[in-house]
Amino acid sequence: MAVHAAVAGASGYAGGEVLRLLLGHPGVRIGALTGNSNAGQRLGALQPHLGPLADRVLDATTPEVLAGHDVVFLALPHGQSAAVAEQLGDDVLVIDMGADFRLRDAADWESFYGSEHAGTWPYGLPELPGNRAALEGSRRVAVPGCYPTAVSLALFPAYGAGLVEPEAVITAATGTSGAGKAVKPHLLGSEVMGSMSPYGVGGGHRHTPEMIQNLSAVAGERVSVSFTPTLAPMSRGILATCSAKARPDVTAADVRGAYEKAFADEPYVQLLPEGQWPATASVYGSNAVHVQVVLDESARRVIAISAIDNLTKGTAGGAVQSMNIALGLPEETGLPATGVAP
Amino acid sequence: MAVHAAVAGASGYAGGEVLRLLLGHPGVRIGALTGNSNAGQRLGALQPHLGPLADRVLDATTPEVLAGHDVVFLALPHGQSAAVAEQLGDDVLVIDMGADFRLRDAADWESFYGSEHAGTWPYGLPELPGNRAALEGSRRVAVPGCYPTAVSLALFPAYGAGLVEPEAVITAATGTSGAGKAVKPHLLGSEVMGSMSPYGVGGGHRHTPEMIQNLSAVAGERVSVSFTPTLAPMSRGILATCSAKARPDVTAADVRGAYEKAFADEPYVQLLPEGQWPATASVYGSNAVHVQVVLDESARRVIAISAIDNLTKGTAGGAVQSMNIALGLPEETGLPATGVAP
Amino acid sequence: MAVHAAVAGASGYAGGEVLRLLLGHPGVRIGALTGNSNAGQRLGALQPHLGPLADRVLDATTPEVLAGHDVVFLALPHGQSAAVAEQLGDDVLVIDMGADFRLRDAADWESFYGSEHAGTWPYGLPELPGNRAALEGSRRVAVPGCYPTAVSLALFPAYGAGLVEPEAVITAATGTSGAGKAVKPHLLGSEVMGSMSPYGVGGGHRHTPEMIQNLSAVAGERVSVSFTPTLAPMSRGILATCSAKARPDVTAADVRGAYEKAFADEPYVQLLPEGQWPATASVYGSNAVHVQVVLDESARRVIAISAIDNLTKGTAGGAVQSMNIALGLPEETGLPATGVAP
Amino acid sequence: MAVHAAVAGASGYAGGEVLRLLLGHPGVRIGALTGNSNAGQRLGALQPHLGPLADRVLDATTPEVLAGHDVVFLALPHGQSAAVAEQLGDDVLVIDMGADFRLRDAADWESFYGSEHAGTWPYGLPELPGNRAALEGSRRVAVPGCYPTAVSLALFPAYGAGLVEPEAVITAATGTSGAGKAVKPHLLGSEVMGSMSPYGVGGGHRHTPEMIQNLSAVAGERVSVSFTPTLAPMSRGILATCSAKARPDVTAADVRGAYEKAFADEPYVQLLPEGQWPATASVYGSNAVHVQVVLDESARRVIAISAIDNLTKGTAGGAVQSMNIALGLPEETGLPATGVAP
Repeated sequence: MAVHAAVAGASGYAGGEVLRLLLGHPGVRIGALTGNSNAGQRLGALQPHLGPLADRVLDATTPEVLAGHDVVFLALPHGQSAAVAEQLGDDVLVIDMGADFRLRDAADWESFYGSEHAGTWPYGLPELPGNRAALEGSRRVAVPGCYPTAVSLALFPAYGAGLVEPEAVITAATGTSGAGKAVKPHLLGSEVMGSMSPYGVGGGHRHTPEMIQNLSAVAGERVSVSFTPTLAPMSRGILATCSAKARPDVTAADVRGAYEKAFADEPYVQLLPEGQWPATASVYGSNAVHVQVVLDESARRVIAISAIDNLTKGTAGGAVQSMNIALGLPEETGLPATGVAP
Repeated sequence: MAVHAAVAGASGYAGGEVLRLLLGHPGVRIGALTGNSNAGQRLGALQPHLGPLADRVLDATTPEVLAGHDVVFLALPHGQSAAVAEQLGDDVLVIDMGADFRLRDAADWESFYGSEHAGTWPYGLPELPGNRAALEGSRRVAVPGCYPTAVSLALFPAYGAGLVEPEAVITAATGTSGAGKAVKPHLLGSEVMGSMSPYGVGGGHRHTPEMIQNLSAVAGERVSVSFTPTLAPMSRGILATCSAKARPDVTAADVRGAYEKAFADEPYVQLLPEGQWPATASVYGSNAVHVQVVLDESARRVIAISAIDNLTKGTAGGAVQSMNIALGLPEETGLPATGVAP
Repeated sequence: MAVHAAVAGASGYAGGEVLRLLLGHPGVRIGALTGNSNAGQRLGALQPHLGPLADRVLDATTPEVLAGHDVVFLALPHGQSAAVAEQLGDDVLVIDMGADFRLRDAADWESFYGSEHAGTWPYGLPELPGNRAALEGSRRVAVPGCYPTAVSLALFPAYGAGLVEPEAVITAATGTSGAGKAVKPHLLGSEVMGSMSPYGVGGGHRHTPEMIQNLSAVAGERVSVSFTPTLAPMSRGILATCSAKARPDVTAADVRGAYEKAFADEPYVQLLPEGQWPATASVYGSNAVHVQVVLDESARRVIAISAIDNLTKGTAGGAVQSMNIALGLPEETGLPATGVAP
Repeated sequence: MAVHAAVAGASGYAGGEVLRLLLGHPGVRIGALTGNSNAGQRLGALQPHLGPLADRVLDATTPEVLAGHDVVFLALPHGQSAAVAEQLGDDVLVIDMGADFRLRDAADWESFYGSEHAGTWPYGLPELPGNRAALEGSRRVAVPGCYPTAVSLALFPAYGAGLVEPEAVITAATGTSGAGKAVKPHLLGSEVMGSMSPYGVGGGHRHTPEMIQNLSAVAGERVSVSFTPTLAPMSRGILATCSAKARPDVTAADVRGAYEKAFADEPYVQLLPEGQWPATASVYGSNAVHVQVVLDESARRVIAISAIDNLTKGTAGGAVQSMNIALGLPEETGLPATGVAP
């Protein structure tokens, strides 16, 4: 019998993407769709690409509307998920695509988000050691941030194998959909086309503590992260360029071996053949993660680069993958590893 | 039992797109993949977005390699399909994504393509009157050109209902993938980004006779077409702006009514609510066709605008839709009507 | 002695572009810069590309601030120019980049803009017959709309020589800067990149009566215009595809001859050699207009295509060109005909 | 009297950009234009944006054609400049926009370019300590590479003031014009639009030794550079994100102070106010360099980010700036610091 799924926050980019994926999922029946200021509007006016749902009308985000579903996806602004989740039964699978339940350290949360910490849920990045087991049967999932998804997958094999020093330097380029649908002058098409620009430089980006949390857990020691995000002239995609100083005596073969081992059984992570580099276009619209890694012998740094679609693997695809695991469905059900290219 | 499908010309954009769709088709098993100059190469090096097929190696396009399949998709340069098709049995479904078998008039073919006319196969645009029936059970299909797909769907209801004069004026913008993967200076990213430019102006585009053929058949009289294609700074998508002079006394209600009737039962064509206009982004990667139409009372012209993805509905999606019909599968099997947006 | 110039509305795209041009104009000294909600801010925060003016602070748009200049450029929302202009002396050259003084017919103005007609000023498109003389010595100039600039220059030679019927069909693609800097959801980078979409279809665009006014004046009879604008994924540029039915017996040589004659002495309009088509990238950031024209013998239509930069020739460049003429400076002073490409 | 300038390699992107700048230079008269395979063609067919030179025809690159000019710009493939330069008199200013004369270390040249080292000329980056003086009166100039320009300007103040450790980590995004006009499959518009991808990862990029040379000279010790270039979906622009570990006790005020001092008198380098970050769009088509720098207190790294136009300041603008200095013209003659935006 099909899983009955609701989406709270169906008018935004994350909500739209989870609906796109659920429309292609053979085991899901789409139930309530809710919005805030958009309640009462046809979905076709807000998400014209979701043709099969064009005549659906958004409800308000209330406990009554969300009741009676097997799964509820929350695509809400940061800080709003806890109140909604409390009203949903413990037997309902609640998948939060916001930040509220990602961090373990309440002080980190308060420092970066400025509100009270809501708690910590199983973390929806099954590729990290131990996570897949924690997601099985869980009824609460915190979907990772898009940058932490790309960065953690690029670097955890190096930290897990003890190949690099605990100081990571990361630059990432993101498509504009990562900034959401809220209208801001610097996100106008006229401003972003033909332009690359950084933001949140110098440690201020909210995804930094999440990266530190993930990498430190794998490394077994505190990893510092210098993270610079940049906005690229494209709608989707993250390219994360991650490096750390290689420990003495580490060889290129050590590095390659660690990555081959880490991703050997992963359905969505593809370690590219040597000499081939990731491109965000290759994972567009898919849950795939393309990774490449080299040892720069001259600078003695391990450089790992990953490409994901920020809305798919980085948000809604990670959410559906986690749903599949939590519900005991085959992990790849309804979730393509094939990008839309060119 | 799954249909066994081969793709000849698997290294190009059309071939890649049909493979992307077949990977998501529950009733198809992918067989031989062939190339010409790329034979012997890994598909992963040529089509990195097709992760699940990355380790497949391209064969040469020979009768032996293509033998033993239920369906063979031909994504070959114009003029090469006939020779290949001849060697495939009459019981094999051959779907030609090239131009060879689209035109009924040999003189048109010779005038626009400069070689001998190969023949005419059932035309894979099921939405045109009579076509769906002709495709059922057929073992040969000529997939329409991308522009004729967009234009014919935008205008046939107006011609079918006798609402407009037989002189159509059409401008269309296409993404660069419509020009294929061959490297030419004007297709460099540096040249196309930030630029709109026309080409083939003044009646010279090879898709013109195909549009005339389709519209004339529906109109019951010879329709002239003035067609101007333009190259837009995007990878995919066609936006076709089509107009013709309204016949006297035709009203806006007549126009709306004719389009509602024409598309009422079509699974992929969506006549948008009044006031909402098509955008190519909304059909990106999907088989959907978004259409809107108005009567410009001042200029007395019917203006119909359609958006498609040139590689999906305009090529490979049309091919898979035709395959489903020809084989008696449900028409929508494995073929999304949902675009990848934003 | 340098001309002293003020810009009212210096924070928007039109205001920024006129400043960019004035910075390169050897005969101009930049005076007051004003804004509305942005008064008090550094220009560097609003227009970071105008480095040499980064430390200038915007004043409020008041008569006192604008007093004492030789030229005042108005880059204000529609309907606001008249009130400001009234307070400036008759000896001050006032150049309105808004729509207020373009139309001659008060009924057209009221129908399309919904307010009282402010009047009609000399029209800043010197290439149209009679306009250059009208601009010489004038102290009031109405800068044309961007679309009417592109369309009028593409079609006036055909109408001036009586080659075509008085029913023009026009499609144009514009870069997003044409929509200005106001933040609207459909102008987000995420929405416009990778997408073509029409708007204002069916006669509703405010630039339509301006095109009709220009073409009718040249034709000596009322010309109807069916105009469909589309939004293209680029920041700047307009590509206008314009056609009209050729009158009987008109030949390709007639057409070519009329265009060669019309543009023979124009410093900014370049009729491209036969076979070469305009591209918006080639006129990016310049005052150049590239035009090509053919007679489609089969459909018997004259197709004229022009490319301009909507912010330069289509707005601020036209303004500076008109300023040069009005003030008796050499027309090309400080105004490049060279695009920034690729 | 105007300087008479020739451009060898006028059909490529660097040659086109130097011509664009020279057309706006009041002290230059454009002489011979040469090409290789394009000799005999109209420039208008190859560089349609250079309208005023459209009817010029390319000559072959021979000593006879290049003789008799005051300045010769060489925009040739790597390895070809020495032979041409040898045939030009010592009194002719030869400005090489290729790599041939940039490196001081012959072993570096041979290792990265695989041919014999041609020599070392004064380095056309006047902002680096000592360089402006070396350029004055020189008759040979090696224009820096585009990446080394962006990176050296971002980091030299930190190294010059001894603020950081000698291990720099650099990621840069470039527009596609940096790869030139040669047609390669991965540079097709269909491939680059919507995509970010790295290349030359792990120390292999030819610009790396040039960065090391520049930074080591300023630091007074060998600086190692880990450099990762990425290809961004835009035609022009470089955004360089550069960081290095801060030395103990270095404060944010030390960093800010060093950068303010370094750029205080530079006409083209703008240290942005704190909180404002560079964007490549702001320097599009200009010789401007926008820089911002912070101390990431948590990771203890100095992060400096610069934006340039790779074709202007990164190639042809640097060439013209060097020409002005070498010839004793005011440094800013004909060379805008104002970008074309949006």
